[in-house]
Amino acid sequence: MTRENPSPSNRLLRVDEALARVLERAQPRKPCRLEFTEALQHVLAESVRADIDSPPFDKSLVDGYAVSISDVRTLPATLTVAAEVTAGNLPMVGAGEGRTIRVMTGAPIPAGTDAVVMIEETELLPGPTPMVRIGSRQVVAGQNIMRRAFSYVKDQELLRAGKLLQPADIGLLAETGHAEPLVQPRVRVAILSTGDELVPASARIAAGQIRNSNGPMLQAQVTAAGGVAVPLGIARDEAAALEQAILQGLQSDMLLISGGVSAGVLDLVPQTLQRLGVQQVFHKVNLKPGKPLWFGLLLGTDANKLVFGLPGNPVSSLVCFELFVVPAMMAMMQRAWKRPCLQAELIDPFQQRGDRPTFFPGRVEPNGTRWQVKLLDWRGSADLRTLTEANCLVHFPAGEQKYAGGSPVEVYLLGPLPGDCSLSVAGDELTLA
Amino acid sequence: MTRENPSPSNRLLRVDEALARVLERAQPRKPCRLEFTEALQHVLAESVRADIDSPPFDKSLVDGYAVSISDVRTLPATLTVAAEVTAGNLPMVGAGEGRTIRVMTGAPIPAGTDAVVMIEETELLPGPTPMVRIGSRQVVAGQNIMRRAFSYVKDQELLRAGKLLQPADIGLLAETGHAEPLVQPRVRVAILSTGDELVPASARIAAGQIRNSNGPMLQAQVTAAGGVAVPLGIARDEAAALEQAILQGLQSDMLLISGGVSAGVLDLVPQTLQRLGVQQVFHKVNLKPGKPLWFGLLLGTDANKLVFGLPGNPVSSLVCFELFVVPAMMAMMQRAWKRPCLQAELIDPFQQRGDRPTFFPGRVEPNGTRWQVKLLDWRGSADLRTLTEANCLVHFPAGEQKYAGGSPVEVYLLGPLPGDCSLSVAGDELTLA
Repeated sequence: MTRENPSPSNRLLRVDEALARVLERAQPRKPCRLEFTEALQHVLAESVRADIDSPPFDKSLVDGYAVSISDVRTLPATLTVAAEVTAGNLPMVGAGEGRTIRVMTGAPIPAGTDAVVMIEETELLPGPTPMVRIGSRQVVAGQNIMRRAFSYVKDQELLRAGKLLQPADIGLLAETGHAEPLVQPRVRVAILSTGDELVPASARIAAGQIRNSNGPMLQAQVTAAGGVAVPLGIARDEAAALEQAILQGLQSDMLLISGGVSAGVLDLVPQTLQRLGVQQVFHKVNLKPGKPLWFGLLLGTDANKLVFGLPGNPVSSLVCFELFVVPAMMAMMQRAWKRPCLQAELIDPFQQRGDRPTFFPGRVEPNGTRWQVKLLDWRGSADLRTLTEANCLVHFPAGEQKYAGGSPVEVYLLGPLPGDCSLSVAGDELTLA
Repeated sequence: MTRENPSPSNRLLRVDEALARVLERAQPRKPCRLEFTEALQHVLAESVRADIDSPPFDKSLVDGYAVSISDVRTLPATLTVAAEVTAGNLPMVGAGEGRTIRVMTGAPIPAGTDAVVMIEETELLPGPTPMVRIGSRQVVAGQNIMRRAFSYVKDQELLRAGKLLQPADIGLLAETGHAEPLVQPRVRVAILSTGDELVPASARIAAGQIRNSNGPMLQAQVTAAGGVAVPLGIARDEAAALEQAILQGLQSDMLLISGGVSAGVLDLVPQTLQRLGVQQVFHKVNLKPGKPLWFGLLLGTDANKLVFGLPGNPVSSLVCFELFVVPAMMAMMQRAWKRPCLQAELIDPFQQRGDRPTFFPGRVEPNGTRWQVKLLDWRGSADLRTLTEANCLVHFPAGEQKYAGGSPVEVYLLGPLPGDCSLSVAGDELTLA
């Protein structure tokens, strides 16, 4: 996809090489027990087995009358209603020999009975002794009864380790009494913004200042990817302040530092990290935008901490987050994950220049059964407004190439598809639902 | 899709009719102000405008040297480094006439300069007075400078009301000082389970009892759909207990009551709801499973409350939630939403019987460029274990029909696709990423 550079000593890492170095170091976090109601969308870290048979007793699947099959061979039949059993209660009397017991959905099947007739197929007869007439439809032994252990037996494996827990799984954990399942925890990601020009969103800005937008954007990106964002605010471009903030960030599983990794004199971040024992794995990737990406590792007794130094401009930051941070987070949460991609037709021509693969913000839209992508009117790398219109990154591999209008390109989806529409695929034809 | 029944007085509502009655009553909640860091995935309820020009000043897009174009017409040129301007500071000295100023990315452009030369294209010369040599690449006026207001001007609309906020939008809210945007709140959904047989997940079960699984499953479903779940636990099948719990549930925007709506004698739910002023809109829908669905409305001074009585068996409950509750939640949050659907090939033959449209739990899997769906080995309507293997509901329209193996069927996606793979569409060909 990217051109090999024949000089390995000073060539930049390719995107795939850099990603491999990140993923080698993105170890799963230690599993933890969570309240089952909090476990949705977590990966199960243990196999879950049944603690009981399910159902735990023969039970009625409908509201109706439990009968002995021998009482209803000839229809219609009229039986005495001997008792009523609701769900949660046990039948205290027997039935059969002309007697029936009224049962609710979920109620245990009374002794002496072997079928349930739905209430809709019966008629209650008025009188001092309650009687019921069973209609004309033939009664079959076992009808409307779910036998004990029909769904699963005690000790059967119900959920395998590695499953990403969905709502029905949460229900099954509840049903089987697994109130604190062992799961892979959400990865905690600390976010630190650096720069003397930055002030918080709530501040009035003075001349030369800008509000911190990358920090909140990264916080939202971490949340959207299923992590727990730990915002650390803004650190001054000054060694002591940076050091203190970084130390705090290293309490989390991962630390994202926004800004301070390009070539300027105030780029204290790599030096400060190394002083704190964070080993540099790489600095700079053959990528546009996003070239200044820094990645390092703090070896820990319990778990290693991953540190990313992200470029300060918002598009570079977003590209690096999508290409490297998201896969690392997914690996640390043990989540099988692949980036959603589409092939689309480029609307306008594009000239790819230079030897860096480019990820250009775009907006992909349906056009009949095909997708078209518009490259956004890009006003420089620091333009966040344009980025809010993007729903994808368009990938142009490295190397000089002219793309005519209509050329097929690969797009990486960022968020929901345009018009909040869903993708619908009918056979091999792509349409919008 | 479903057959018209010619007798309108006692016929059951069709799914589309029932959904229309729900959606007519699912009014958007009153917008509220949220901290911008909490606003991700909420619908913006006001248009957001720029409070300042962006950038607020001419700024450098790179680390380098700000020069006057007249000083660098002939290259290489050697200039005196008069000062250094970092981001967040204002240039205190002028430049031009043989003087240059070192600027950091994001720094304001000093007076007297009209281009920035990247640091990589310069060479710092040692000596008592710092000098810099500008290399051989021609310098163009305005290069590496982003002009004030280039991205947007003060008062320009930046985000339209109705947008579902994504991470870049959160960044833009921060950049423009909208620290408390007006958004559609997440819908609060109370969940009440009814049944004397039910005990909490953490309880040991006695004879005749089962653990409450529907409540936790619904709680997870509400969370997965973007709502705030308000679990109310279990109410006994007894009028006073039910009434108290329902009153509590009516504090939320929506109340889901699990169980107590089928035809049995203990089905107190509809009567209790009506006594509390909740008007029945419909009871029962022509649907399998899920026929006993109850839907009603409490007229409020501020906002109406929606109440769903969901059938007690887990599959019926899931089907009713997906078909009716999710669309109601989306409407109340003003979210444009369509259910993700696929067309797939049925693996095994199926005989559809009766006059109710059926939604059968299935597992859809890729097979080359097509999708195949397996109907799950269904062990009765109360089988939650099978449901944990489902990733879709297969839709069989009403009416007797034999489906041969390989027949095309419509499937409604429930969660992530199998193998946690992503859908990839190349042109009109469907593949897996």
